[in-house]
Amino acid sequence: MKRKLLTYLFSASMLTGYAQNNPSTMIDQKVNQLVGQMTLEEKVGQMTQISVEALLKTTNGVVNEPHEIDPAKLAICIQQHKVGSILNIGGDAQTKENWQTLIQTIQAMALKERLKVPVLYGIDAIRGNNYTLNTVLFPQQIAQAASFNPSMIQKASQISAYETRASFIPWTFSPVLDLGRQPVWPRIWETFGEDPYLVGELGKATVEGFQGNNQVTDKYHVAACLKHYMGYSMPLSGHDRTPAWIPEREMREYFLPQFATAVKSGAKTVMVNSGEINGLPVHANKHILTDILKGELKFEGFAVSDWQDIQYLYQRHRIAKDNKEAVMIAINAGIDMSMVPTDYTFCEDLIALVKEGKVPMSRIDDAVKRILKVKYEVNLFDNPSGNNKDYPLVNSAEHNKVNYDAAAECITLLKNANNVLPLSNGKKLLVCGPAANSMRVLNGGWSRNWQGTNSNETEKDKNTILEAIQNRFGAANVEYAEGVTFSEEKNIDEAVSKAANTDVIVLCIGENSYTETPGNIDDLTISAPQIALAKALAKTGKPIVFVLTEGRPRVISSIEGLSSAVLHTYLLGNEGGNVVADVLLGKVNPSGKLPYTYPRHPNSLHNYYHKYSETLEFDQWGGFNPQWEFGFGLSYTSFSYSNLKLSSNQLTDANAITVSVDVRNIGSVVGKETVLLFVSDQVASVTPEVKRLRAFDKIELKPGETKTVSFTIDNDKLSFINHSLQRVTENGDFVLSVGGLKADFKYLGNL
Amino acid sequence: MKRKLLTYLFSASMLTGYAQNNPSTMIDQKVNQLVGQMTLEEKVGQMTQISVEALLKTTNGVVNEPHEIDPAKLAICIQQHKVGSILNIGGDAQTKENWQTLIQTIQAMALKERLKVPVLYGIDAIRGNNYTLNTVLFPQQIAQAASFNPSMIQKASQISAYETRASFIPWTFSPVLDLGRQPVWPRIWETFGEDPYLVGELGKATVEGFQGNNQVTDKYHVAACLKHYMGYSMPLSGHDRTPAWIPEREMREYFLPQFATAVKSGAKTVMVNSGEINGLPVHANKHILTDILKGELKFEGFAVSDWQDIQYLYQRHRIAKDNKEAVMIAINAGIDMSMVPTDYTFCEDLIALVKEGKVPMSRIDDAVKRILKVKYEVNLFDNPSGNNKDYPLVNSAEHNKVNYDAAAECITLLKNANNVLPLSNGKKLLVCGPAANSMRVLNGGWSRNWQGTNSNETEKDKNTILEAIQNRFGAANVEYAEGVTFSEEKNIDEAVSKAANTDVIVLCIGENSYTETPGNIDDLTISAPQIALAKALAKTGKPIVFVLTEGRPRVISSIEGLSSAVLHTYLLGNEGGNVVADVLLGKVNPSGKLPYTYPRHPNSLHNYYHKYSETLEFDQWGGFNPQWEFGFGLSYTSFSYSNLKLSSNQLTDANAITVSVDVRNIGSVVGKETVLLFVSDQVASVTPEVKRLRAFDKIELKPGETKTVSFTIDNDKLSFINHSLQRVTENGDFVLSVGGLKADFKYLGNL
Repeated sequence: MKRKLLTYLFSASMLTGYAQNNPSTMIDQKVNQLVGQMTLEEKVGQMTQISVEALLKTTNGVVNEPHEIDPAKLAICIQQHKVGSILNIGGDAQTKENWQTLIQTIQAMALKERLKVPVLYGIDAIRGNNYTLNTVLFPQQIAQAASFNPSMIQKASQISAYETRASFIPWTFSPVLDLGRQPVWPRIWETFGEDPYLVGELGKATVEGFQGNNQVTDKYHVAACLKHYMGYSMPLSGHDRTPAWIPEREMREYFLPQFATAVKSGAKTVMVNSGEINGLPVHANKHILTDILKGELKFEGFAVSDWQDIQYLYQRHRIAKDNKEAVMIAINAGIDMSMVPTDYTFCEDLIALVKEGKVPMSRIDDAVKRILKVKYEVNLFDNPSGNNKDYPLVNSAEHNKVNYDAAAECITLLKNANNVLPLSNGKKLLVCGPAANSMRVLNGGWSRNWQGTNSNETEKDKNTILEAIQNRFGAANVEYAEGVTFSEEKNIDEAVSKAANTDVIVLCIGENSYTETPGNIDDLTISAPQIALAKALAKTGKPIVFVLTEGRPRVISSIEGLSSAVLHTYLLGNEGGNVVADVLLGKVNPSGKLPYTYPRHPNSLHNYYHKYSETLEFDQWGGFNPQWEFGFGLSYTSFSYSNLKLSSNQLTDANAITVSVDVRNIGSVVGKETVLLFVSDQVASVTPEVKRLRAFDKIELKPGETKTVSFTIDNDKLSFINHSLQRVTENGDFVLSVGGLKADFKYLGNL
Repeated sequence: MKRKLLTYLFSASMLTGYAQNNPSTMIDQKVNQLVGQMTLEEKVGQMTQISVEALLKTTNGVVNEPHEIDPAKLAICIQQHKVGSILNIGGDAQTKENWQTLIQTIQAMALKERLKVPVLYGIDAIRGNNYTLNTVLFPQQIAQAASFNPSMIQKASQISAYETRASFIPWTFSPVLDLGRQPVWPRIWETFGEDPYLVGELGKATVEGFQGNNQVTDKYHVAACLKHYMGYSMPLSGHDRTPAWIPEREMREYFLPQFATAVKSGAKTVMVNSGEINGLPVHANKHILTDILKGELKFEGFAVSDWQDIQYLYQRHRIAKDNKEAVMIAINAGIDMSMVPTDYTFCEDLIALVKEGKVPMSRIDDAVKRILKVKYEVNLFDNPSGNNKDYPLVNSAEHNKVNYDAAAECITLLKNANNVLPLSNGKKLLVCGPAANSMRVLNGGWSRNWQGTNSNETEKDKNTILEAIQNRFGAANVEYAEGVTFSEEKNIDEAVSKAANTDVIVLCIGENSYTETPGNIDDLTISAPQIALAKALAKTGKPIVFVLTEGRPRVISSIEGLSSAVLHTYLLGNEGGNVVADVLLGKVNPSGKLPYTYPRHPNSLHNYYHKYSETLEFDQWGGFNPQWEFGFGLSYTSFSYSNLKLSSNQLTDANAITVSVDVRNIGSVVGKETVLLFVSDQVASVTPEVKRLRAFDKIELKPGETKTVSFTIDNDKLSFINHSLQRVTENGDFVLSVGGLKADFKYLGNL
């Protein structure tokens, strides 16, 4: 019966939306009518977002647990400053019931105001409603990307939306559409990886999962927030929120397309890049925020600042002399809502600026209309909170099954010498390493709190890698020694001595949880104690399976040769332990592929779509030679590619070509294979990349089964941004490659 | 008497130049007349530069030693293709006499041609005429920069010019004006370091040293070549000749000013950046080569390609489909001369392109006029070769004394715990490490051959660090064990056991010689065997003096704490060993200061003029926290700063302010101190850097002596490039700092 409910959620809900009776024009009419009634103070209040930590009851300066709204503080927020949006949670996750109470308390006060405009509550519900206890924690985005499976990602996002809405929260600050091409950056694990096309396709799937297909979301969906618009992910130093140099051509080639795709799929909000690009903080960049986003991309939703970022224009970036000037610059540049976050200076300064004529009322009205439109679109006026009984499936077996299936599609087998995996049952294992027995490590940051520090307690009922292996292989067959922490040697000798009685060592290494600036590192190489542990264990001569659990690809070249197999789990979430154990046992056949280039060295960082000047042909002393390439991933079976066919070897504007290839499972177990199609432009006015991903598809094949996979390549898929910042396709020769097969074709233009 | 000759060289030669009788208009007239007589083939020949290795006699495919011109090959070059320029040397350095013969042979054939235009020979005479045996090898540019002494650098460049011209070569491919702000890049040692102002001032000094002060150089000077115009030094990956992303604002703020300064000081040629910027190879970038260089900067000399870089437009960069298209793109973009280097495809294709109307004759004439003008300006028509008897001072004691004095100003003392240095005579020393007994390591790349691989043989008569220490301290007091090579452990145990009988360990570590792509590295951390040696030696408990001899600042944070003192020698050249020994002994008081930020970690690379978002205040997990800062350097004495005075605390366009500060030697030995003046813009429309160097001066002080140092700060010194790419100074508050003292002032604009 529950299975039936789940089916209902995923199909019928799309048909029963609110939108049919509320076309865009009706919402616009309501918005215009409402804005027409508003005072300046009420308008500015709508543009203000306050962090809930400023509204909670405290005892001796410490927030009460469970959280309680302080009515006096809320009155200052709602009644005095007319604030229209609240965000997040200060500290740790709350129960669903407490969330419902919090939201209801807030909305009750908001709805007592003159115009009865509900508050829009937003939260970092990253791959699951992680600020609510007992909800599903899916694989983090980078792991999702390894699945190369948009429909799986859409399904996971639908469940995340459902579980977020169950806490009466209609807006999630997700997905991240930043390009994960700088491995040092501490948020690469929050991205869909290195390739702009992949990020765009998976971003679209996520937005559709969160929002559903209707303009007005039903009670099971939430507004998405594309972030961090734009160019956030490639700071020069690799450190979060530090300066980036991104020429506009590169911005439009690598960073913009995925936002364009997601805006086109209906994303309702964007959050703005906290950093500076080319000496200008993006919160002050009218070209990016207004000309491109609202002009070129025709984005109709609203742009919210990131945490404190208007204040940072004078505190950190020093492009404004005080808060008031910072507010003027940001609002005139195109910021619609300010994540202040804990005071009311934004309201006060913006009101003064409008009165002084320094911010035009037209800009205020534009911002407020965009915000109110989203409030109508998430159906807040009709349904400001929610009804607990609508959400029986939160953290249900069905939802957790989807999580397990998702994680099983993400895990990536990078090495399997002599087919050491899967292990037969009955094998004796030593499990060790700092990632072996930790839910925190499996989940990473944004898990029950900002830095993900307490998942070991909150996710106690889930299985760590160790626990899952004990379950699957039998506790009697499993020895355990941590060996080292991430930062210190601990009991390496114990680990080595326990290895003596076992057949295989499962060494779980990687990183502890983090996000944002606390995740900054100064050396991409994996920590020294983990290297020491691997080297000590290797001396035992036992085969070692590395299980990498890490937010970014830490360099392991000094120990990779000591492993017999390498399993990359990224941050697999709550089902990660079970999936690792089932992969070891062969119950799950891994099908993930790397969504980024895994580097071999800390100062030799290239992307798969590097230029020819970066190849070993032209730089034999440091050219492209990563540990593992983008798109790499093994299976317990093997696939052969044959019969690559093009409908024509001449592509024109009028005639796209169809590419087909036969893929056959030539191994002995069922397996999934992601078919990746790359195209190489041979000569172009902009130095061409060695190759670019232009299409992909994931299929499942039984042993001996063959499927034909087809793709369409049109002129747009061959296009790039030229030096005049125009998207063009230039006539000439191209080489296409799929699964090791290659074919040439020509683009002939407008024939 | 020789001393007298030297004095003559440095002063009177400037007064006796050729220029007084040859004003610019006279040269222009001659050039126009000559070009008017030339055929297309002759013009294209002038634009062609061939590598001499294509013209040498070989035996069984190997170049004869000593080098001999093959008349048949030369005839193809000169008579058939009318080639106007030849460069460099294939392989190892030759004697001065052989050079003279080579050049005379080439010119003899050139002057038999119809129009009698001499060949312009160019060479990588980097900090000394290094391709001629028995010439002075000065400190490399990065070491020179540490001197902060333009007049010393000018003097060294004058000697380099003299010794180059003694080989009858009138053109050096020097100085490098690239900005050394990416420590991984293998050519940072060829730069003047990290600061654009410092690079500009030292570049100007170098150009004036090479060229003299007259438009037409005398027989003691050579034409300079500014390279690598522009933006070469900051590839994204850190690897040489790989793609850079440099927005135009940053280009104009950090990379262009030093070229503008040097062009203004009369530099006759520039060499072009081999890399691509923002997807466009600079050899194809008309905006950079023509609009900016020849337009904005009013550069009247010519632009030569770097090695094979027109061919690389299709072979490596793939922006052209073949050589002919590559030639068209490059010449139309503004390249005047092609360093082909070993075939005549350039001539053939360019002639065809002109005939087809694809390259206008006006572009050809412009290029040829620029080239001929330089030929007149180096007085080639009157003096195509030279006279050996004019150069008695090559490699003289006087020249080598200047080299010693220069190296003594460069060496930089980075640490001196408990004043362990200087060492008293009579101390027993263990000298060890792979840099201890190597002229190759002291000299680096571009030393007698491209990669500097044979200085150990060619500079046998010079002292390595070990040899100099043995000379100064007495061989009986010095033990030696190499310990490790740069790449392998060797005899660490021997080094450790020898340490037992000594008082102090001098550990010489760093890098072996390299340049360009063979110098690419993938980890900035110093090599593992050297770390192992330091750790093993530290266990002896003896004080260790690190002597760093390295082209770039290799990370040593894991062993820096094991040292008592650290001496940074960069690449000090042929007198490096003597200077190190004399610093250890206290005969030289070190006065160098770091011309770059010395990083602490491989993935935390910030410049001293980073932004506030990169400070520890905003990034406590990885913000600016280098091993040593730009401008840092200790002395055997101490200096105190006091009495910082500003003539006004209000600066206007009409009224610059004068800053003065008293500097006192409060120690017991004479010492030199570089006074650095930094300015911090408090608020600006472009996020301001934490500070920028705006003036410097180096003074010498006896114990107890005080000098007042003055600087002028005008509006231009406060200017920056705004988002509209204009150089502006914005009204507001500034903080000035000198030697730890600070003062505020305001800029009030056009009052």
